[in-house]
Amino acid sequence: MTLHELGPAAIEGGFWAGRQRLNRDVLIPDGERRLEAAGNLGNLRAAAGRSDERFRGMVFGDSDVYKWLEALGHELAREPSPELSRMADETIDLLAAAQCEDGYLNSYYQVAKPGPRWSNLAWDHELYCAGHLFEAAAAHPHDERLLGVARRFADLLVDVFRDAGTCGHPEAELGLVKLFRLTGERSYLELAQAFVDRRGAADLEPATHGSSYFQNRVPVREQDEVEGHAVRALYLAAGVTDLYMETGEPALLDAMHAQWRDMAGGKAYLTGGVGAHHTDEAFGDAYELPPDRCYGETCAAIASVLWNWRMLLVTGEARFADLLERTLYNGVLAGLALDGGGYSYVNPLHVREGHRDPVERGARRQPWYACACCPPNVMRLLASLQRYVATRDGDGVQIHQYATGTFGPVRVRTDYPWDGRVTVEVLEPGLSVSMRVPDWGSARLDGRPVKPGYVRLEHDTATLELDMTPRLVLPHPRIDAVRGCAAIERGPLVYCLEAADAPADTVVDDLRLTGGLEAVARPDLLGGIVAVEADGAHAPADRSEWPYTPDDRHNGGRPVRLLAVPYALWGNRGDGAMRVWVPRNS
Amino acid sequence: MTLHELGPAAIEGGFWAGRQRLNRDVLIPDGERRLEAAGNLGNLRAAAGRSDERFRGMVFGDSDVYKWLEALGHELAREPSPELSRMADETIDLLAAAQCEDGYLNSYYQVAKPGPRWSNLAWDHELYCAGHLFEAAAAHPHDERLLGVARRFADLLVDVFRDAGTCGHPEAELGLVKLFRLTGERSYLELAQAFVDRRGAADLEPATHGSSYFQNRVPVREQDEVEGHAVRALYLAAGVTDLYMETGEPALLDAMHAQWRDMAGGKAYLTGGVGAHHTDEAFGDAYELPPDRCYGETCAAIASVLWNWRMLLVTGEARFADLLERTLYNGVLAGLALDGGGYSYVNPLHVREGHRDPVERGARRQPWYACACCPPNVMRLLASLQRYVATRDGDGVQIHQYATGTFGPVRVRTDYPWDGRVTVEVLEPGLSVSMRVPDWGSARLDGRPVKPGYVRLEHDTATLELDMTPRLVLPHPRIDAVRGCAAIERGPLVYCLEAADAPADTVVDDLRLTGGLEAVARPDLLGGIVAVEADGAHAPADRSEWPYTPDDRHNGGRPVRLLAVPYALWGNRGDGAMRVWVPRNS
Repeated sequence: MTLHELGPAAIEGGFWAGRQRLNRDVLIPDGERRLEAAGNLGNLRAAAGRSDERFRGMVFGDSDVYKWLEALGHELAREPSPELSRMADETIDLLAAAQCEDGYLNSYYQVAKPGPRWSNLAWDHELYCAGHLFEAAAAHPHDERLLGVARRFADLLVDVFRDAGTCGHPEAELGLVKLFRLTGERSYLELAQAFVDRRGAADLEPATHGSSYFQNRVPVREQDEVEGHAVRALYLAAGVTDLYMETGEPALLDAMHAQWRDMAGGKAYLTGGVGAHHTDEAFGDAYELPPDRCYGETCAAIASVLWNWRMLLVTGEARFADLLERTLYNGVLAGLALDGGGYSYVNPLHVREGHRDPVERGARRQPWYACACCPPNVMRLLASLQRYVATRDGDGVQIHQYATGTFGPVRVRTDYPWDGRVTVEVLEPGLSVSMRVPDWGSARLDGRPVKPGYVRLEHDTATLELDMTPRLVLPHPRIDAVRGCAAIERGPLVYCLEAADAPADTVVDDLRLTGGLEAVARPDLLGGIVAVEADGAHAPADRSEWPYTPDDRHNGGRPVRLLAVPYALWGNRGDGAMRVWVPRNS
Repeated sequence: MTLHELGPAAIEGGFWAGRQRLNRDVLIPDGERRLEAAGNLGNLRAAAGRSDERFRGMVFGDSDVYKWLEALGHELAREPSPELSRMADETIDLLAAAQCEDGYLNSYYQVAKPGPRWSNLAWDHELYCAGHLFEAAAAHPHDERLLGVARRFADLLVDVFRDAGTCGHPEAELGLVKLFRLTGERSYLELAQAFVDRRGAADLEPATHGSSYFQNRVPVREQDEVEGHAVRALYLAAGVTDLYMETGEPALLDAMHAQWRDMAGGKAYLTGGVGAHHTDEAFGDAYELPPDRCYGETCAAIASVLWNWRMLLVTGEARFADLLERTLYNGVLAGLALDGGGYSYVNPLHVREGHRDPVERGARRQPWYACACCPPNVMRLLASLQRYVATRDGDGVQIHQYATGTFGPVRVRTDYPWDGRVTVEVLEPGLSVSMRVPDWGSARLDGRPVKPGYVRLEHDTATLELDMTPRLVLPHPRIDAVRGCAAIERGPLVYCLEAADAPADTVVDDLRLTGGLEAVARPDLLGGIVAVEADGAHAPADRSEWPYTPDDRHNGGRPVRLLAVPYALWGNRGDGAMRVWVPRNS
């Protein structure tokens, strides 16, 4: 079974429309200023010979420009804009000017000149940047100039990497497959395949964090777990799944299923976020999922969305759309401030009172970063979100996510995720349309109970009603770091306790959860949310001289009523404590 | 109250005598070969103009030589040895030859020439290395040549650092105070004081991990918590406590007490190990104590021993001797393989089945390290261990630790930590002698119940009997990472479950603890230990597709009998799983 992207799709209202508007009106224009201030655009000007600026920032700075340019492409496809067109045109003009005669384009090597081209594939991200250029070109499919830049560079890569080499940071694979699909040029697909086939030789040096960091410990087809740097691992998985779509090679899909089971079964946070380690931004062992010292990079969550989407296209199985939804509403969305004024890099599920990790680590949202991979990644995802809602295949249309809008021949109306009612109108009478029923609660379609998975509509208008009763969830017994805790979910949203909502004279880390959940509309809070109230207890802990004793101090406390808010919106009201997993009295 | 080191002291048998023998016969001779192979000695030869070797290894490589040379000094004071004397003489000769005309000595700057001397105080460790040189000189108090090298360098420092500057890595303070005590030269003490006074200006750049990493966020006297790089923080604390001993300035002691309460109360592992973060080798927030992704560097545990010893000297309070003992028997000792064949750098309290962190991180013991600070630190501590057993003051003698040996006018016999019986013979009849009673269990002195703290002997021979019944301990409710778990202790030892001892057809991570502890002598195991058996349950967890559900799967399981071994001895029987904190059925 293979699903395909729909043609015209538009989110027209509700939850995600607001985020798309913020992206178009605030994030993307701000992006231009930030890319200017941080030197990314100046680096390209210097490469173009238009200025004598010194190279500034990270070796992969060009990729931030490409991701932002990709977002512009998606936005211009949604709706014309002279201002956004100007940004895109100027940038494409700059890229054309910066490109070398032979097609090479990388401002770090052109301006900073750290060595011969391709001399440090492990760390210098030249192929990674190229991949993002190709993705940007695919988002401006009618811009011949940008397509020309991309093709010239891709042709050079085909030539240079005919026999050997692959990148320390996977991404080129994704871009090359997109460019192949756009142009039909088979050598691009073959190069993507070669980059994939070459992994596993443990030949990327220096391998500071071990070759697993680069997904280079074993060949891709033998890799049955997700390991190493999380963004790298999941960009590669997305690229491999793309390759499977084109080649149909069963061994690739087998490896992807095994890796997905490994990730979903024991290496993903409740929020869908991934990456347990700060040091190497990597997956930990199975079940090693600390909520406090969690990395959960915004880019890794986005990478998971990209991969889950491809697995959904390939298999049509609802579990991929389920995890995509969870990741989007929680792990990704937490990366963006409510007012668009900042992004997080690191997305912990627990921040203690008085937490004092250096701000530059990114566990609090900042306007921009020295390593600014996440902000333009958020932009390109939000700008293309309508593409992830529905698909088509030979039989008809499948609705995977719930958003108000028109998706091909289907019109959807909903106040999801606050409300569980989703109405669908099929605009081509008689067309077969099916809808995902999520795995987290009961549901009714036109009043009839339906099971999780995909259900076929029986009429041209239909209403899906999802049970939005708040839920308590408990962790698998092997997830040591949150043993004895519970978390609150409602619909697709994970909730958290925040200092701003803690009962008077309590601190978040002394609160316990006892049950009694109730959804409460709070139009006054965080732009209007449905919060969850819960019964709890406040058990202030003594600060003893030595914290390990024979005494059991894990129960009791004064009854209090707790208020939980969506995790994705944490940290929009100051710097207080927050926790998703709350100790429960046994 | 101030206690003083005893004069002649010797461990003559039992647990620590074996470790001292291993150190003298195996570790220290191996150290010479390792320092040669890793380039540390070659760097100094190059600095001396005796070879044209290129600089190899870390910028602070000289300090590894100094710590090993310090260990040689302690060993030669314990007992002469032509072979150890040869090593010391050759090394001292090399240092004298390598020292510059003006007293400067640092092979990295002399050979690698990264810039002008003192041009990167934050990261280049020149003063840190000097401090270890001074400590080595103090361990060879009768070697005029080494003392001359140290004094010439110290005199240069007094001159260069008259007005400004302090080191990114505290340590010079400790060495300067020792050199002051040895020579009476007050300018050394004044320089140590200046180095301390200058901290807190946030002026060490680049401060990659924030200025708290360097203990430079606030002035020392305002610093009421331990934060940043754990070894740096505790070397500084030890140096500040030394300074207090000389100056008696109350603000220094107040800060030390506050920092100690912060560390012991919520930033120390059950093993006494410290340092929660891998990234910056730093203390985390209070109660952020993950057992799996724990850093717990061996050097940090040693630094804690050094600081607790000084706090004990200053205050005479048993809690410092208690924590010193706990740290020594667990956090430090875990750093050394039973056969002396390797050292650990990182000391986790939990290693999962199939754990695949890169070996170079040091969570498994390795023969040596590229950054080899820990091995010679273990050597110098073991070689000087007899000094930490007892003290004297105006009233008499205090016995802090239990080891067979003669400590000034007191003779001690014991099979501790396996047995709780300690006999003391006072060799100067009528001398006042007191003994520490530890905080972890009941005790009797000559049959009479005594309370934790110090108890005075009533006769010239006395027997302390400590209750060695195994104990279950539970963590403070705020230590999230081990909630719902218990640990086993017996005497000063923390115990753990290891894969090698797991019941048939079980894996360590599926085991739970239910109680029923019993000590069992196991002469066959790990060189002869007292193990602890415990009632437990085996509850194999399903590997589900998504690990967060409404179901409570945290109880039950098939009854099994568990065997726990001392944590310090884990990892001597292969690479299997290990855990100190074991989930308990509620």
